[in-house]
Amino acid sequence: MKIEIIPVGDEILIGQITDTNSAWMADKLTRKGFEINAITTVGDCAQDIIGAIDTALLRADVVLMTGGVGPTKDDITKKTLCEYFQDQLIFSEDVLKNIEQLFARKKYTLNELTRNQAFVPENCFVIQNKAGTAPILWFERKNKILVSMPGVPFEMKTAMNNEIIPRLQKHFLPVDYLKCSFLVSGITESALALLLTGFENRLPANFSLAYLPSYGLIRLRLSAWGNENLSELELQKEKLKQLLEHILIDESDKPIETILGEKLRSKKLSISVAESCTGGNIAHRITLVPGSSDYFEGGIVSYSNSIKTNVLNINSATIEKQGAVSEEVVELMAKHISKTMQTDCSIAVSGIAGPDGGTPEKPVGTVWICTQLHNKIVTQKYQFGTSREENINRATNMAILQMIEMVNREV
Amino acid sequence: MKIEIIPVGDEILIGQITDTNSAWMADKLTRKGFEINAITTVGDCAQDIIGAIDTALLRADVVLMTGGVGPTKDDITKKTLCEYFQDQLIFSEDVLKNIEQLFARKKYTLNELTRNQAFVPENCFVIQNKAGTAPILWFERKNKILVSMPGVPFEMKTAMNNEIIPRLQKHFLPVDYLKCSFLVSGITESALALLLTGFENRLPANFSLAYLPSYGLIRLRLSAWGNENLSELELQKEKLKQLLEHILIDESDKPIETILGEKLRSKKLSISVAESCTGGNIAHRITLVPGSSDYFEGGIVSYSNSIKTNVLNINSATIEKQGAVSEEVVELMAKHISKTMQTDCSIAVSGIAGPDGGTPEKPVGTVWICTQLHNKIVTQKYQFGTSREENINRATNMAILQMIEMVNREV
Repeated sequence: MKIEIIPVGDEILIGQITDTNSAWMADKLTRKGFEINAITTVGDCAQDIIGAIDTALLRADVVLMTGGVGPTKDDITKKTLCEYFQDQLIFSEDVLKNIEQLFARKKYTLNELTRNQAFVPENCFVIQNKAGTAPILWFERKNKILVSMPGVPFEMKTAMNNEIIPRLQKHFLPVDYLKCSFLVSGITESALALLLTGFENRLPANFSLAYLPSYGLIRLRLSAWGNENLSELELQKEKLKQLLEHILIDESDKPIETILGEKLRSKKLSISVAESCTGGNIAHRITLVPGSSDYFEGGIVSYSNSIKTNVLNINSATIEKQGAVSEEVVELMAKHISKTMQTDCSIAVSGIAGPDGGTPEKPVGTVWICTQLHNKIVTQKYQFGTSREENINRATNMAILQMIEMVNREV
Repeated sequence: MKIEIIPVGDEILIGQITDTNSAWMADKLTRKGFEINAITTVGDCAQDIIGAIDTALLRADVVLMTGGVGPTKDDITKKTLCEYFQDQLIFSEDVLKNIEQLFARKKYTLNELTRNQAFVPENCFVIQNKAGTAPILWFERKNKILVSMPGVPFEMKTAMNNEIIPRLQKHFLPVDYLKCSFLVSGITESALALLLTGFENRLPANFSLAYLPSYGLIRLRLSAWGNENLSELELQKEKLKQLLEHILIDESDKPIETILGEKLRSKKLSISVAESCTGGNIAHRITLVPGSSDYFEGGIVSYSNSIKTNVLNINSATIEKQGAVSEEVVELMAKHISKTMQTDCSIAVSGIAGPDGGTPEKPVGTVWICTQLHNKIVTQKYQFGTSREENINRATNMAILQMIEMVNREV
């Protein structure tokens, strides 16, 4: 059984937004044992939508469409589906009632355009949208299923979780997708591949090993389809684990901030952060994790030197002499923040994110990271690239990683 | 002239990563006057890659492929392209030299797998990758162009900017894409559409108006292809602007943190932030903007109540009595941070991001935002939803917006 996703919207094709829906859907569906074979994005143009549906129905059993179902004129998915399936729109009192309830809750006034959302194709199964006004349309034709749902992330997620995935599970017996993941660091992708050459050559044909490098980390995914491969997966996993021992961060595909959080919680350690070039991103990543208030006390973003002096109490002569991006300053930042916020651990980062501000001695991408745990500190200098966003993300990853390693060593 | 993008990689289809490359490419290409007609994502599977190329070459003039060109076994794009074009791999000394230079700079050791990256199809034009080891392959067949490039974002961007876009511009005369954008807030999508019904009905047929709602903001894009529509666009733009007057934030499609930054810079105002539930995300968003150190001094993330008391000097009795998520506390946070960091403006946020921590009086999604400019303050309560990530993003947007509006009113 194969699924194809068709996101619809000019805003994706002109690059105004990044399509994050498809990754969320693919992740959810894969975990439930469904296989995605393609994602085809097209614009708000009937001919292109029809072309994409034609191709998708040839190669997939289920087509999941997102977007183009809003109340405005540029949204043509519903009309186009009517054309495609030679159907006609009828007014649904049930959909209207659902919209009225939603609007009553939000204290919005119902207008004509919103009321028009209650028109639905006559020959399809209509699923009520519990988070928005556009109904979810479920078509079944010649053993194939096509579902149209909103592109608004929250509405799509609500519909997928509560309605679409459960219904797909009733229709199809999903084949279990078996996977184990490893997170490694401190090695290039090609050196890692060389290290694993023998392992990969001896891997059974129905297993696959994928490499996913991202901002200084590499995720490895060993996978196979079907529960009959479970014991073989365990065997291969152990072999792989032995080979990775010296570079292994974690046996999961969790975000590293989640890994750090779990370790801090299990060892009952609290943490604070002092950030310069990462500008709050480390605190942001740590607090994306639900329940992070159990271990995260807070942080200071000392973007200007005067904040480093006035708020973090770093002697201005030290900054003058060593520079804000230096071993001395980053260590003082770490020590001060954990003292002020009374935490067991702290992370401090100071660097030059770019695009400006570099010098021959300290080019853009120079970053000092200090992690502290009780009376121990580790300070390291990193040299990243020239892209601001890349430097912020790399520094954030390396800082979290450095902290994970330190917590790991703590008995 | 139409372009289709084909991202290749199992990691996208299983939802392990979000494809951010395509949005970046689409944005760059659209701005240069090229039109993207589809984005088709397939896995690391020869048959699927070939199928996608076949379809793409039927409907597009240029096919841009990303990914599947790493040194590891799961990367099969190069081999598959060889098969597709009935070509063979030959060893390129030029590519090897490029890799050796790159590795010398990074102080990496060259290994066999990396050396294999220098094998390239015989009948294609090879572009050196200045940021990585995989060469960029440019095929020309029967008036169509197909380019294969790395999926690593930094390598893709370097190749696109320096080589691929300039070469496409030489090959084709791009048709100018005319667009103007408006950012509005404080209105639902359907109410906005109703407001613009008359305008949309009278809009010339070759113009289009698109709505793009995101976390409390709506972006409107009025567009047309071809420079001959320039004066008509100006006319329509003025009409639209008058209709939007009372809800207009900005006439651009810039991120709101960039808009805030420009306004602060032009009025010579400095800013600091005190964050609770947004956990550093406001500081992060502000500092994503290059040059933000001109106006951003720093911030404090006071995640726990003890940090609110000990670092932000908020009386613990006030927190006890009013709760950390309250008008009083958020105002004290704003006042204290601007005083400590000696800034003209400040933003303070306190709320319940969820999924836990809500009460009947203050359910998950309750957020207080205070913005301050010299001796004026504005404090507002917002009620968002139940998703943690959504609440963090909405609170961040509303806080930045509230600050923009305050700076706008400052003479």
